[in-house]
Amino acid sequence: MKYLLAISIMAFVGVRSMNATVPAEGIPASTNIPEARYPCVDSDSRATFKLHAPDAKEVRLDICGKKYDMSMGEGGVWSVTTPPLVEGFHYYFLIVDGVAVNDPASETFYGCGRMSSGIEIPEKADQASYYKFDKSVPHGQVRECRYFSEKENSQRRCFVYTPAEYETSPSKSYPVLYLQHGMGEDERGWHTQGRMADILDNQIASGKCVPMIVVMDYGNCGYIHGARPGESRDEFGASFTPIMLEELIPYIEKTFRVKSDRDSRAMAGLSWGGHETLEITLRNLDLFAHIGSFSGALFFLGNGLDKAYDGVFNSADDFNSKVKTFFFGMGSEENFGSDKISGALKKAGINHTYYESEGTHHEWLTWRRCLNEFLPLIFK
Amino acid sequence: MKYLLAISIMAFVGVRSMNATVPAEGIPASTNIPEARYPCVDSDSRATFKLHAPDAKEVRLDICGKKYDMSMGEGGVWSVTTPPLVEGFHYYFLIVDGVAVNDPASETFYGCGRMSSGIEIPEKADQASYYKFDKSVPHGQVRECRYFSEKENSQRRCFVYTPAEYETSPSKSYPVLYLQHGMGEDERGWHTQGRMADILDNQIASGKCVPMIVVMDYGNCGYIHGARPGESRDEFGASFTPIMLEELIPYIEKTFRVKSDRDSRAMAGLSWGGHETLEITLRNLDLFAHIGSFSGALFFLGNGLDKAYDGVFNSADDFNSKVKTFFFGMGSEENFGSDKISGALKKAGINHTYYESEGTHHEWLTWRRCLNEFLPLIFK
Repeated sequence: MKYLLAISIMAFVGVRSMNATVPAEGIPASTNIPEARYPCVDSDSRATFKLHAPDAKEVRLDICGKKYDMSMGEGGVWSVTTPPLVEGFHYYFLIVDGVAVNDPASETFYGCGRMSSGIEIPEKADQASYYKFDKSVPHGQVRECRYFSEKENSQRRCFVYTPAEYETSPSKSYPVLYLQHGMGEDERGWHTQGRMADILDNQIASGKCVPMIVVMDYGNCGYIHGARPGESRDEFGASFTPIMLEELIPYIEKTFRVKSDRDSRAMAGLSWGGHETLEITLRNLDLFAHIGSFSGALFFLGNGLDKAYDGVFNSADDFNSKVKTFFFGMGSEENFGSDKISGALKKAGINHTYYESEGTHHEWLTWRRCLNEFLPLIFK
Repeated sequence: MKYLLAISIMAFVGVRSMNATVPAEGIPASTNIPEARYPCVDSDSRATFKLHAPDAKEVRLDICGKKYDMSMGEGGVWSVTTPPLVEGFHYYFLIVDGVAVNDPASETFYGCGRMSSGIEIPEKADQASYYKFDKSVPHGQVRECRYFSEKENSQRRCFVYTPAEYETSPSKSYPVLYLQHGMGEDERGWHTQGRMADILDNQIASGKCVPMIVVMDYGNCGYIHGARPGESRDEFGASFTPIMLEELIPYIEKTFRVKSDRDSRAMAGLSWGGHETLEITLRNLDLFAHIGSFSGALFFLGNGLDKAYDGVFNSADDFNSKVKTFFFGMGSEENFGSDKISGALKKAGINHTYYESEGTHHEWLTWRRCLNEFLPLIFK
């Protein structure tokens, strides 16, 4: 059973560590670099970390909001085994004599406003198949595209998922989902940490969602250790709105075969990206018909629903006729207020979908699940 | 002048650090994460590194084969300024109480068999423009493609550069260059560290090289801290040959609009990837007409040229009629033997091109330059 589980959890990076000898403490994490045996995860989701640091005074592990002391054993190797960890992807650091550093054995992921270590704690296979590479389904591509922004006077980068059939149906046009990362993350997050390509590939193959293009750009809110000069926290990412509306969307519509009517344009985001999504879409309903906020940073309830977003919620009939998908989701173990928003929207007669991910926190497993719930609703 | 230089050196990541206040010691490196002011580089190529580590006993910098002691200043911040560094891209580590770790201020790059910090020391603008993003030229895409390998019973990933016109010329087919990374690196290297997309974009726009597709896959030699179980050093990457010939090439030719005759197929690689290139192409000249080895790991001279690669060099006329491009390059400051190979080939009457990159070591600037020299020769 343990071995079967190990096979089923193999994600991209893990493939390369398959050849390493499996340690006694568990299966090497799929997020390790090639051949790295640690960190590894046992069948009860306990993870064991090791670091060779014979000259260090103190080494600790920082994961899931907790710090664990590591102890030095033979050959100057420090180690610790955690209690069972929540399933899903977690950023983590090793703290060497007070300095939070990356684990040399881990791939790195842009999160926490820097390149961070990450570990995938596998879900039970039957729950997790929606974000696993399936060799029996056609695979789309994730394209790195670079374009010049006049507003920033610099190049920018976005990632564009194209479905497998994009190559073989050269006269077909596709709807577009703009999908945003959270604060301290960047345009790589949804593909690398979020497994969006597998989620899309699997849903498209089974007919659960329609074939679509997904665009992931940098929301200008990837720094958390201080805003840009002159920017307050509330303004993080505000510069992204004009870039997206006046530069990114035109670039995408010029470069790819996409449908450009509002019914074929969606936007969703996680955490701060959910905040950006609401800011951009609710003030531009002529452009977007499908909206998703996953653990969205939500401030607008403070002044009352009627004052939010230029009064967009004041006419429920008008809103409901325009917005085809209005989705809110969050993890049951986090406190990001999507449930309160849902309650207020219901009272105001605003049609929407509310989803709660059982047992998950403000982390990527919540957002993989949210995306999995959101995709079947849009463009239909 | 310093400011102009700073603008001209702005690569992708650097764009984001533009908004940070510029430190007194120089311009933030283009390889920094968003907003990071250090490391920075002055106009004489001296780099200043800083790390906040109030509780560490000793912090050192490890770059370009040398270690520099860092000294602790105010607020527990350690710093050091190096002597002038060689231009180009360098991997580096900070050593905190004996542990080599990534600089939290740096992007990370797969090299040295792990995720590493990296710093770009800018060349003078007039030399370096060939690998700089130019807003006035059309830009290709770098596509992440995942395919299933029956031989490894797992998914694999390759990156595929498609030229800008690939989108707009839907009936045109393209020649293909297979381009390999070095040992301890992976399929990300040529794009991220090697700037291959900019080199291709710029050459295609100016007509210096023909529009082509470039495929970058993992050469199965990205680990250096020990081979795979049962593999000796000489065998590193040997498993890649059948994967490339029987799985990767068919996948590419099925997925993209490519020409599949031997005159339209090239392979090149750096260091160990050069070794792999010679191993694969020289034993399969029915498949490849263009061959490049950049600082290639070259062992075959030991037993004499006549015994190398099943005697492929024994008939110069035959070889010269089959191989349209045979390119060797290396840096003037490294000792990888391409010059000796060139001498032996010349003696044997084997047509080839030999290029030496002035002042550079076994590093990415050598390989950017090699690629820049190689591209105009192929598919013509």
